[in-house]
Amino acid sequence: MKIELRHGAGGADTSELIDRVFAKHFSNDVLNRMEDAAVLPRPEGRLALTTDSFVVRPLEFAGGDIGRLSVCGTVNDLCCMGARPRYLTAGFILEEGLESETLGRVVTSMAKTAEEAGVTIVAGDTKVIEGAGGLLINTAGVGTIPEGRDVSAANLRPGDRLILSGTLGEHHAVILSARMGLETSLRSDCAPLTKMAEALFAAGVHVHAMRDVTRGGLATVACELAKASGCSILLREAALPVSEGVRALCGILGLDPLTMGNEGKLFLAVPGAEAERALAAVRSAPYGENAALVGSVAEGSGVVLETAVGGRRVLSPLRGEGLPRIC
Amino acid sequence: MKIELRHGAGGADTSELIDRVFAKHFSNDVLNRMEDAAVLPRPEGRLALTTDSFVVRPLEFAGGDIGRLSVCGTVNDLCCMGARPRYLTAGFILEEGLESETLGRVVTSMAKTAEEAGVTIVAGDTKVIEGAGGLLINTAGVGTIPEGRDVSAANLRPGDRLILSGTLGEHHAVILSARMGLETSLRSDCAPLTKMAEALFAAGVHVHAMRDVTRGGLATVACELAKASGCSILLREAALPVSEGVRALCGILGLDPLTMGNEGKLFLAVPGAEAERALAAVRSAPYGENAALVGSVAEGSGVVLETAVGGRRVLSPLRGEGLPRIC
Repeated sequence: MKIELRHGAGGADTSELIDRVFAKHFSNDVLNRMEDAAVLPRPEGRLALTTDSFVVRPLEFAGGDIGRLSVCGTVNDLCCMGARPRYLTAGFILEEGLESETLGRVVTSMAKTAEEAGVTIVAGDTKVIEGAGGLLINTAGVGTIPEGRDVSAANLRPGDRLILSGTLGEHHAVILSARMGLETSLRSDCAPLTKMAEALFAAGVHVHAMRDVTRGGLATVACELAKASGCSILLREAALPVSEGVRALCGILGLDPLTMGNEGKLFLAVPGAEAERALAAVRSAPYGENAALVGSVAEGSGVVLETAVGGRRVLSPLRGEGLPRIC
Repeated sequence: MKIELRHGAGGADTSELIDRVFAKHFSNDVLNRMEDAAVLPRPEGRLALTTDSFVVRPLEFAGGDIGRLSVCGTVNDLCCMGARPRYLTAGFILEEGLESETLGRVVTSMAKTAEEAGVTIVAGDTKVIEGAGGLLINTAGVGTIPEGRDVSAANLRPGDRLILSGTLGEHHAVILSARMGLETSLRSDCAPLTKMAEALFAAGVHVHAMRDVTRGGLATVACELAKASGCSILLREAALPVSEGVRALCGILGLDPLTMGNEGKLFLAVPGAEAERALAAVRSAPYGENAALVGSVAEGSGVVLETAVGGRRVLSPLRGEGLPRIC
């Protein structure tokens, strides 16, 4: 079945679509009530609230799809504030001509990823617009922040050490390859990092700042943290994990892994004395086996890369187009 | 300035757009921190959580715009669960070619409507896609539900009386007229109904069920409530408020105000003994001056309209296309 405009008019056809595609995969006590808003118990602790829209093309790619991405992106933003992800909302904008089978696979993938991430999808919305079979998804996420956690982009301190939870650039490389029609064995790294973040707190690490490395890549994230905290960051190129496949693609196309987006990698700052413990916690968590200590924080400003041959390069945030629609 | 794909790549150009357009109008302590997620105090009471995407065309119309609509739609969904709207997230999907001046007006309108509605926009996201200058907005909303309120689509009881807070169909009629190039004096009714809902609770009314009348119109909403509650609904056509302008447009185009969408009208069920008090509360609130008692709830199932000439017509939810993209 192809999606038509009538599926978005809010009447009987919309109800049928919701029953057939969404209710089946997202079934839970809250959502099944089909009210105007989900009613949830009073949460423990402070709230974290975030939103992200997903416009990636192609909708399905090696290692993931827009549905898995739409859960991971929002869940990981909550984790980066020290929150335990609890609830998601999902807003679907369908372009007419979308195959309902494609939508069904995406929704199945979202449900599976939500379960892995430990969140419940409690509210949704569906609209249909003119177009060519595309699909846009917005998710908003609510998490709760336990007492004693104070994670912020502004909390870098001189003496902190910096950890990257795995290899750079896979997601970006996969989307780029798919668009260019290149055959590669690369797979997107998109993954929910709930367990990785919780492993850090369970190990008693006082995480100062944490960001997931997405659009703009590590260079952009590092610049944002340095600016927000009024510190400088030194990254060691030789320590940055990059896979052979991404390295090869970057060589051919003249790309820099430092401005390529991931969707399942954390970049975090911890007190120097806790760095080895933090690294062990990240490595023991799912998706963290290639984690590495990649740099340190000092007084000053800006981000400097110590290159593999011993030179020094000042890093800037991504400027210009990059690759649009990677998430 | 026209929006280009580079404004959505997540680097320096995205930051500049956020600074120039969004930060200026949405400035508040939480949002200004520019973290991955907003951190909010532990809320009083249960949470209500909802989401809605807005895809209306044209972006600006008589009486409103997509920005005002994107606040009202989500705020009103929270109100309908008895919640006090507190926080909004806003996800913007910009099509390349969108004029940044248009975006600026829409964002200004959102900020003004959020203030009227009593909500704070605490998190946002911006993406840019290929297209023809369009704009899509998703909002998600968090509200808190005070003790003692129990509003649900499933709570209709035989003997309840039904109130409609004003005239039917304005928003739908305005969008339809704009698309057809018709000159009319109609204005969209899109409005935040926070004060109306709170006026009911402040008057001690035990609201059983409440819905805002949107896509699908009153017929669809009434059918949904009757089904969820296992009751029947009787509506009196002569009591339904419809403006002269909407009535005229419906006459010309063969439309039925009962399946036309509003964006600032509540339909609610209250115990029979509280009906006059509830009506007075709604009428005293902003946007409620034309409220009327329009029907009642009984045992049984389905929705029946007692026509102005004394006949009886069974109402069904909207089927087929209706008018797409009215919200």
